[in-house]
Amino acid sequence: MMLGSGSVETLARQRKAMDTKAPLTESLMLDTLMNYLVTMARTVESAMNRALDAIVSLDDPRTAALPGEVFLLEPRINEMEIVIDEQAIRLLRQGALPEEELRLIVAGLKLNNDLERIGDLAVNLAERVVSLREMPGAAAPEELSPMVSAVRGMVSQSLGALISRNVEMAGKVLESDDVVDKYRDRIFERQLRSMTGEPESVSSGLQFVLATRHLERIADHATNIAEDIIFWVRGLDVRHGRGMGGLPESRITNNSQTLHSDVTAWGHTDHVIFT
Amino acid sequence: MMLGSGSVETLARQRKAMDTKAPLTESLMLDTLMNYLVTMARTVESAMNRALDAIVSLDDPRTAALPGEVFLLEPRINEMEIVIDEQAIRLLRQGALPEEELRLIVAGLKLNNDLERIGDLAVNLAERVVSLREMPGAAAPEELSPMVSAVRGMVSQSLGALISRNVEMAGKVLESDDVVDKYRDRIFERQLRSMTGEPESVSSGLQFVLATRHLERIADHATNIAEDIIFWVRGLDVRHGRGMGGLPESRITNNSQTLHSDVTAWGHTDHVIFT
Repeated sequence: MMLGSGSVETLARQRKAMDTKAPLTESLMLDTLMNYLVTMARTVESAMNRALDAIVSLDDPRTAALPGEVFLLEPRINEMEIVIDEQAIRLLRQGALPEEELRLIVAGLKLNNDLERIGDLAVNLAERVVSLREMPGAAAPEELSPMVSAVRGMVSQSLGALISRNVEMAGKVLESDDVVDKYRDRIFERQLRSMTGEPESVSSGLQFVLATRHLERIADHATNIAEDIIFWVRGLDVRHGRGMGGLPESRITNNSQTLHSDVTAWGHTDHVIFT
Repeated sequence: MMLGSGSVETLARQRKAMDTKAPLTESLMLDTLMNYLVTMARTVESAMNRALDAIVSLDDPRTAALPGEVFLLEPRINEMEIVIDEQAIRLLRQGALPEEELRLIVAGLKLNNDLERIGDLAVNLAERVVSLREMPGAAAPEELSPMVSAVRGMVSQSLGALISRNVEMAGKVLESDDVVDKYRDRIFERQLRSMTGEPESVSSGLQFVLATRHLERIADHATNIAEDIIFWVRGLDVRHGRGMGGLPESRITNNSQTLHSDVTAWGHTDHVIFT
């Protein structure tokens, strides 16, 4: 259904492809990969948002059906993951791809994995909701709602960056990770205190602590997605604290190939790391 | 250091490569990728085993240094991940790779990610150990030790399968996942009871519950690694419950290309999943 609305754009790209040296089929296959990734991203975001809505409205009868909807989406997301991987491998089989297309495919394989795991974590969160709904009077820690908002924002921003190839937006996601970790720690401290003081809160407290770990991991995957987008568009590997800073903008956009080897210094690190 | 001991074998492979049609450089680059993956796997296993040894010997002064060693290994593992990705991308840039080599590279990208995450989880476990060592008298649940053994066995088997390209060994890893989940649930129930009954056990109980989640996730990554090995060697995608059964052995080994499309039925599923 979602892909149908993009058919005009696809047609325009088809025409453009005919004017260039790239074979028509390859261009169409890349379009397909990108369309699949966007559809996967939207499905995962929709599953995750259902889980997030459910965990912040435990007493609301109107959200009681949300966990079940999350469970129903999971097998579909799993199938999508496999289809996207296969599409990426099909493209790689063609061989001799331009550098940026190769990076899109490699980033796509990684993104795909992170998206699927966000889907899994939505299921984990929905399981927490099911348990918590069976514990009437379970009081959510007050930082849960802002933590959920922060995670929702990170995922929304990382998927927006994917759809619009927006490196600046991806960069903003990387800055938000610390906020989520702080909420996690504060909720942990609060739950520890209440569980120690009120034995009747142990069951729900454990569920909330686990829920914050799921949220934290969703934020981690949003960060991974943002890093993959930066790698795809700019050829920059910004994982594990290799920041985007310290490099003039002009160098970043003008020659990603050279830049890549500058930043990561492969020729040197390979030897150092693996001996 | 580790790679040095493999130099005789590498030389033999170099000679063999000269006798075949494959260009020498490509063959060497594939060897390098495989060597890097094996070194990464050994480093990750060594970090993980330190964390596992530490969590089952919380009162033993001889294991007090283990968490620190795990923390020290993490940046090295992170660097390895980046170098391996780059090596895989270098190989893909060559283009027109034989099907099995292409699958090795794609599987390598995935394996690499799973290995790095096991390294992260070893760090998480080591953090639990540091907290628990500050709580004298914290009693580990009795199922923790067998759960740790099960996880250790799964990782050891999945890495053994990687090093020896052994699909049967990889298949055994897939069967062990349920055992780990059962231990996780039993420990959860036990900790819930003791935390509710004894407020002084809440702090340590929370740490043990979190530790079992880390262990469970290590087992998940071992499962992913096993699935990637099966994909690499046989071209079979066995993720998300797509089992290895129901297919005669001869078909599996004789024509992985055809088989792959048989099992996953891409032509049909693509359309169904993404519309």
